[in-house]
Amino acid sequence: MLVPPNNFGMVEEDLYRSGSPDSINFPFLEMLGLNSLVWLAPEEPSPELLTFCNQNSISLYHLGHLHSTSAWEPITEEVVLQALNLLVQPATYPAIVMCNQGRHRTGTVIGCLRKLQMWCLSSILEEYRRFAGPKVRVMNEQFIELFDIDLVFE
Amino acid sequence: MLVPPNNFGMVEEDLYRSGSPDSINFPFLEMLGLNSLVWLAPEEPSPELLTFCNQNSISLYHLGHLHSTSAWEPITEEVVLQALNLLVQPATYPAIVMCNQGRHRTGTVIGCLRKLQMWCLSSILEEYRRFAGPKVRVMNEQFIELFDIDLVFE
Repeated sequence: MLVPPNNFGMVEEDLYRSGSPDSINFPFLEMLGLNSLVWLAPEEPSPELLTFCNQNSISLYHLGHLHSTSAWEPITEEVVLQALNLLVQPATYPAIVMCNQGRHRTGTVIGCLRKLQMWCLSSILEEYRRFAGPKVRVMNEQFIELFDIDLVFE
Repeated sequence: MLVPPNNFGMVEEDLYRSGSPDSINFPFLEMLGLNSLVWLAPEEPSPELLTFCNQNSISLYHLGHLHSTSAWEPITEEVVLQALNLLVQPATYPAIVMCNQGRHRTGTVIGCLRKLQMWCLSSILEEYRRFAGPKVRVMNEQFIELFDIDLVFE
């Protein structure tokens, strides 16, 4: 029996998203053959997750811990750019983007990635809401709408 | 600007799901390089969709139109088995599974596919609900739970 992490989803070939995993999710994550884990929560990853990454040669990128002290603060443009700079490099893949619930920080980064992919805004927001559920934050939707994709290539 | 169809999502490598597309979605669908379209709605696909499939050499499998006269009737076991028999064949891919809204019939087939992939039921239902939104039908969740995967290999 395989147990994907909370709010797990496939974004693109070799790109996944989810909330923070427990050790019960590790056999599932192992099957993804990950090369990178982009960790967007301000909290440190659990020691179990660090060990899992070590054992499976997964590079863990903890972004945003210098910019935020609370899970309630919105993700900053700087952190979104750091994440996208990883996601535009083929060497990063296969990769998974994670935050505590896989809703807001992850959803904002994936939303900005969809802008890079030239998705129309209504489809981007539909996807954001699907993962945010009743916890939709309009602030994040505005962030995605106003995000300037040219910054990624500067 | 690319406009994915309503309720579009990636299920696995080369496997997608969505609601019924309009012609505004065709440039996006073209990029998926589809080989097959599994159409689960009882209604006939639109003439535009048939033309699009023809022009792009996509095989359209209209399942279930003999078994159901109303979009409100649940999908039958026979139709789910027909869909899964397509989805276990590598020659079917890249493929997309569609119904009117991409919620119930599509969600039931994908839920049964997740059973074949040995996902635990709670994760399968989380994914079903993510796409069904406030329109969750417990009947479909029960169908997924009770579906006997051994039937696929008989």
